[in-house]
Amino acid sequence: MTVHTRVRNRLSPEERRSQLLDLGVRLLATRSLDELSIDLLAEEAGISRGLLYHYFGNKHDFHEAVVRRAADDLIEQTAPPPEGEPLDRLLASMSAYVDYVVANYEGYLSLVKGAASGNETLRQIYDDAMTVLTDRVFVEDALHEILEDTPATRLVVRGWASMSEALVLQWVKDPAGVSREQLDEILAGSLPALVETVTASARRTSSTT
Amino acid sequence: MTVHTRVRNRLSPEERRSQLLDLGVRLLATRSLDELSIDLLAEEAGISRGLLYHYFGNKHDFHEAVVRRAADDLIEQTAPPPEGEPLDRLLASMSAYVDYVVANYEGYLSLVKGAASGNETLRQIYDDAMTVLTDRVFVEDALHEILEDTPATRLVVRGWASMSEALVLQWVKDPAGVSREQLDEILAGSLPALVETVTASARRTSSTT
Repeated sequence: MTVHTRVRNRLSPEERRSQLLDLGVRLLATRSLDELSIDLLAEEAGISRGLLYHYFGNKHDFHEAVVRRAADDLIEQTAPPPEGEPLDRLLASMSAYVDYVVANYEGYLSLVKGAASGNETLRQIYDDAMTVLTDRVFVEDALHEILEDTPATRLVVRGWASMSEALVLQWVKDPAGVSREQLDEILAGSLPALVETVTASARRTSSTT
Repeated sequence: MTVHTRVRNRLSPEERRSQLLDLGVRLLATRSLDELSIDLLAEEAGISRGLLYHYFGNKHDFHEAVVRRAADDLIEQTAPPPEGEPLDRLLASMSAYVDYVVANYEGYLSLVKGAASGNETLRQIYDDAMTVLTDRVFVEDALHEILEDTPATRLVVRGWASMSEALVLQWVKDPAGVSREQLDEILAGSLPALVETVTASARRTSSTT
């Protein structure tokens, strides 16, 4: 107990804030953003609302900080393994994405909805995360083993990300006989399949002009 | 003029309502739903607000009726031609979809956003239209020349529809060097490519068990 108290007391304000954000993200996993209140966080953290306002200013800033942390977690947890074949690394990354959505379904869904509804803060955080995730596909495939970096493949990777999101959200709600293994393979396998569509289209277009 | 007045006078209330809905849909093409007011429709139709409330009850019912009509238009305009190879018919249908989004960008975007934001009426109209459009893929391909009807292909077709929507909305905002012809081919070509992913995954899954 003494050790625990000492460790706790030695947390800097930044560490304490970070710890509270982690708690906020955990609470958001099974709740929509609307259901995540300062009161709930205060109760779960065992500290006063006044102290929380000290750390987060107001409810809007609190929500923004929690969602940014959640987006950072998503990006970190879906990082592909450093070694391996490009397609195996993509499969591992997409499988981690499914894990993330399954574990954080309510909060993730409310972020997606909030971003689409025109909430400017949520839209910005969502777009930033989406940009990091789609850029990463190109960074990770620096040798162009899966795809070339062209305007058309950029467009298709963004579409593939939207598709993956829709597929996983739909699958969590109703798997309809599709196994988890099959879902992972469809998510990872669809990227090279879509890129091949772009390549085939470019060949046809150039051969007809 | 006399003929015009006589024709106009002979419209039944249903026909008059339908005519007003058409006008509403035309106004919605270049406006968000929030910008489409009863006042604007009254001004454009040259009739009183009172008469419009007679036809549509209130603003909510008016919006619902216009959006349902817009969704019906989308379904009708993207109907594939009755004859031809399955992939050519799919290409024609997707090309008509791009035409629709280009011509009705603002209204379509506001429907997509409204449906995602949790507006229950818009979500229902959007889901109904999406169901008709994805079901149609299976109905039109009754001979399974493009795809089998399985839970996994149903899931993938829904994901493909979300991807197509994201791709076209993104392309209209910023084509980034992707030609219209290439966009159409990517949209139509991606469906069989995605279905092949499902088939390949099913083969792998069954061979490992």
